Amino acid sequence: MKFFRTHTLQEIAEIAGNEFVGEKDFPVTGINEIHVVEPGDIVFVDHPKYYDKALNSAATVILINRKVECPEGKALLLSEDPFSDFNKITQHFRPFKPASKSISDSSVIGPNTIIQPQVFIGNNVTIGKDCLIHPNVSIYDNTVIGDGVVIHSGTVLGGDAFYFQKRAHGFDKLKSCGRVIIEDNVEIGAACTIDKGVTGDTIIGEGTKLDNQVQIAHDTIIGKRCLIASQVGIAGCTRLEDEVTLWGQVGVISDITIGKGAVVYAQSGVSKDLEAGKTYFGSPAGEAREKYRELGMIKNLPSLYEKIKK
Amino acid sequence: MKFFRTHTLQEIAEIAGNEFVGEKDFPVTGINEIHVVEPGDIVFVDHPKYYDKALNSAATVILINRKVECPEGKALLLSEDPFSDFNKITQHFRPFKPASKSISDSSVIGPNTIIQPQVFIGNNVTIGKDCLIHPNVSIYDNTVIGDGVVIHSGTVLGGDAFYFQKRAHGFDKLKSCGRVIIEDNVEIGAACTIDKGVTGDTIIGEGTKLDNQVQIAHDTIIGKRCLIASQVGIAGCTRLEDEVTLWGQVGVISDITIGKGAVVYAQSGVSKDLEAGKTYFGSPAGEAREKYRELGMIKNLPSLYEKIKK
Amino acid sequence: MKFFRTHTLQEIAEIAGNEFVGEKDFPVTGINEIHVVEPGDIVFVDHPKYYDKALNSAATVILINRKVECPEGKALLLSEDPFSDFNKITQHFRPFKPASKSISDSSVIGPNTIIQPQVFIGNNVTIGKDCLIHPNVSIYDNTVIGDGVVIHSGTVLGGDAFYFQKRAHGFDKLKSCGRVIIEDNVEIGAACTIDKGVTGDTIIGEGTKLDNQVQIAHDTIIGKRCLIASQVGIAGCTRLEDEVTLWGQVGVISDITIGKGAVVYAQSGVSKDLEAGKTYFGSPAGEAREKYRELGMIKNLPSLYEKIKK
Repeated sequence: MKFFRTHTLQEIAEIAGNEFVGEKDFPVTGINEIHVVEPGDIVFVDHPKYYDKALNSAATVILINRKVECPEGKALLLSEDPFSDFNKITQHFRPFKPASKSISDSSVIGPNTIIQPQVFIGNNVTIGKDCLIHPNVSIYDNTVIGDGVVIHSGTVLGGDAFYFQKRAHGFDKLKSCGRVIIEDNVEIGAACTIDKGVTGDTIIGEGTKLDNQVQIAHDTIIGKRCLIASQVGIAGCTRLEDEVTLWGQVGVISDITIGKGAVVYAQSGVSKDLEAGKTYFGSPAGEAREKYRELGMIKNLPSLYEKIKK
Repeated sequence: MKFFRTHTLQEIAEIAGNEFVGEKDFPVTGINEIHVVEPGDIVFVDHPKYYDKALNSAATVILINRKVECPEGKALLLSEDPFSDFNKITQHFRPFKPASKSISDSSVIGPNTIIQPQVFIGNNVTIGKDCLIHPNVSIYDNTVIGDGVVIHSGTVLGGDAFYFQKRAHGFDKLKSCGRVIIEDNVEIGAACTIDKGVTGDTIIGEGTKLDNQVQIAHDTIIGKRCLIASQVGIAGCTRLEDEVTLWGQVGVISDITIGKGAVVYAQSGVSKDLEAGKTYFGSPAGEAREKYRELGMIKNLPSLYEKIKK
Repeated sequence: MKFFRTHTLQEIAEIAGNEFVGEKDFPVTGINEIHVVEPGDIVFVDHPKYYDKALNSAATVILINRKVECPEGKALLLSEDPFSDFNKITQHFRPFKPASKSISDSSVIGPNTIIQPQVFIGNNVTIGKDCLIHPNVSIYDNTVIGDGVVIHSGTVLGGDAFYFQKRAHGFDKLKSCGRVIIEDNVEIGAACTIDKGVTGDTIIGEGTKLDNQVQIAHDTIIGKRCLIASQVGIAGCTRLEDEVTLWGQVGVISDITIGKGAVVYAQSGVSKDLEAGKTYFGSPAGEAREKYRELGMIKNLPSLYEKIKK
């Protein structure tokens, strides 16, 4: 998430009351998670195991719970609880604003777009032209929708990331300030849920079609012209390249990549990267022809047992 | 889908600008997909592989991309792109009409039926008597609901069929003009999605009960007194005969038939026709006793390996 | 379900026109299912197989279809159809009251709680302080929500139990009069469905987090600080102890217990009690390490077959 303007290190340090290491006017332009950081970004780290990764990432401001040596050209924000202070900074720059009406005055809706009754459109939502939003859709703040998009009833765009940290007293939630971006000519079925990115964007690529009851978690990026059948669930930070087909009730784990044009048969569970252009089946999923061979073997087990007995 | 009156071949040909073969006043009464066509219907075909099937079907008007010999007593509509022209004809006879309010004035609601707040009821919807429609239900245009029906919150009836054709530029959608028909004494849980037929009807039979988050795709026909547990997904054009029981999270592929009284255990994946009166399990599903036997064999594999080593 | 005051046996008997065995002023304080009955409760039984269980339960009033000997200190209500008469009593004490507006005047909403647009809040709902209810949520009558609860769009709390009895003419529904109770600091994702108890309560324990599209059936009790990922379905009357983790698309059967701290991997199907503190996988689920061992064995089947051939 980028701030609306560049802030100084000192300004940022005052938000959560952090001491800092670096020039007080060191420029800070955004706040992001480790997997999407860029120069100007704040990243947080609270476990020594990940110190090096955070200090050596593209982020130039590290919110950290130990006064380590500051890398050249970077700055540190010192915190007893980086997780909480990260939330404070997010909250400062993207506070939740309750809606005063069903369609926010700050939303922008393109020409020839039809909004059916009982649609909720939050603050700073942008919807392109020639779209059709069916009844009882909920579009949370800051969602971006392209042209020619169809969204069916009951679908929810921009819900919070399911991202919790276990603490002594229970779970603390990492506040999400990312967005959902729906590119042109996407169609989304009924009762789908697409969560916003934690700090980055969840993206549904151009021309992709989602059937009903599909779940897309935070920061997941779906390529162009994918087909995703009903009741598929895709966990966070996963990437589908273009023209991937997932049949009904497939589950996909977080943080993996499914290659271009891959096809995954119904009810499969994808637990690791899949190569482009191949066909997969099973839970955990493997190449379909191997999985079918295994299924044949299993069917033959009774006769195998008989043979061995003899 | 039947037109409201009989049209002439010439009238129809003018809609998409097609040349035609046949008498100009040849009667045309509807438009349908190949699996539900009747005399008087237009059917479309754009691949030589399916020419014979379309020409020999019950349909009497064939929208086709080659000037073949016209069968006796039938007519042809000639088109460079039958898929698009089929959509044009659908669009002409069943244009999408945006709603002006949450409950359309053209809907008919029977006596003693309770409509809770925030229900959307589209154009030409019919709801019988003694029904209870809970809040935030969305009922799209032309849906037909019988007597004594209960529909829980968040459910969506009449969403578009998930039916796309891959073209050079991406996916083109076949426009749906069918309906959802809910027969008497059906109960539908919360957050279910039941899509309309492409040109025919999706039907939930008398006395059938659906739990929450059930997905029923286009043109699927569910028999009477079926029990469908939560998170079941049934793909398009499938048929459940009467008194079928599907337990939680079952998936059913398209275009198959599940026989009367069959029972399918939880999380099974049904990939082919199932016989009546039997009990099934597994993904892909087989008879439950065989599947349980296989599971037992798999559990014994470690000891089998040991034996073979010796 | 407890009545608002104690009634006499005679008062209760008049509701469905039952004869009774016992003192006419025998006290009756509620109506409950066999698994949650307490002294003062009515329980019903209509099959000789379960007579003893009902007569010996904690319930002190037995609605029964045979004039058996009345246990000491208890009373009988005689009925030709205990199922129907149980429904009549439920209907008498907890009749469904249609809503006159989106947020019932009889609901109580705590300070600093934000209700976004298009939320439905039924009769006698209680919501604590510091909650955030997102758009298009449906909260049925009598639901109880604690403090600091977040509920995302499209979620439905308090739908009817999926509880039907097969009769000659089809299914009869057991009327639900229980409640949904959401304890403090629970977060519920988008498009979740949580059904009310039949006569008792469905409970989501303090600090538990549910992702999107989770289904929790009637009378199920989820402990504290559980994590339940997207598209999980949990059937009725099941108990999760504290700190259980269920990953995506897991299914859990009815009437079982998952022990404290157990972890169940994605797409597993839990069909029996699980011990505390262990990790499970598969459908049906077993201990993860055993299941992974079986999967390895299956992968080796082709080479095993080769060896045996030789």
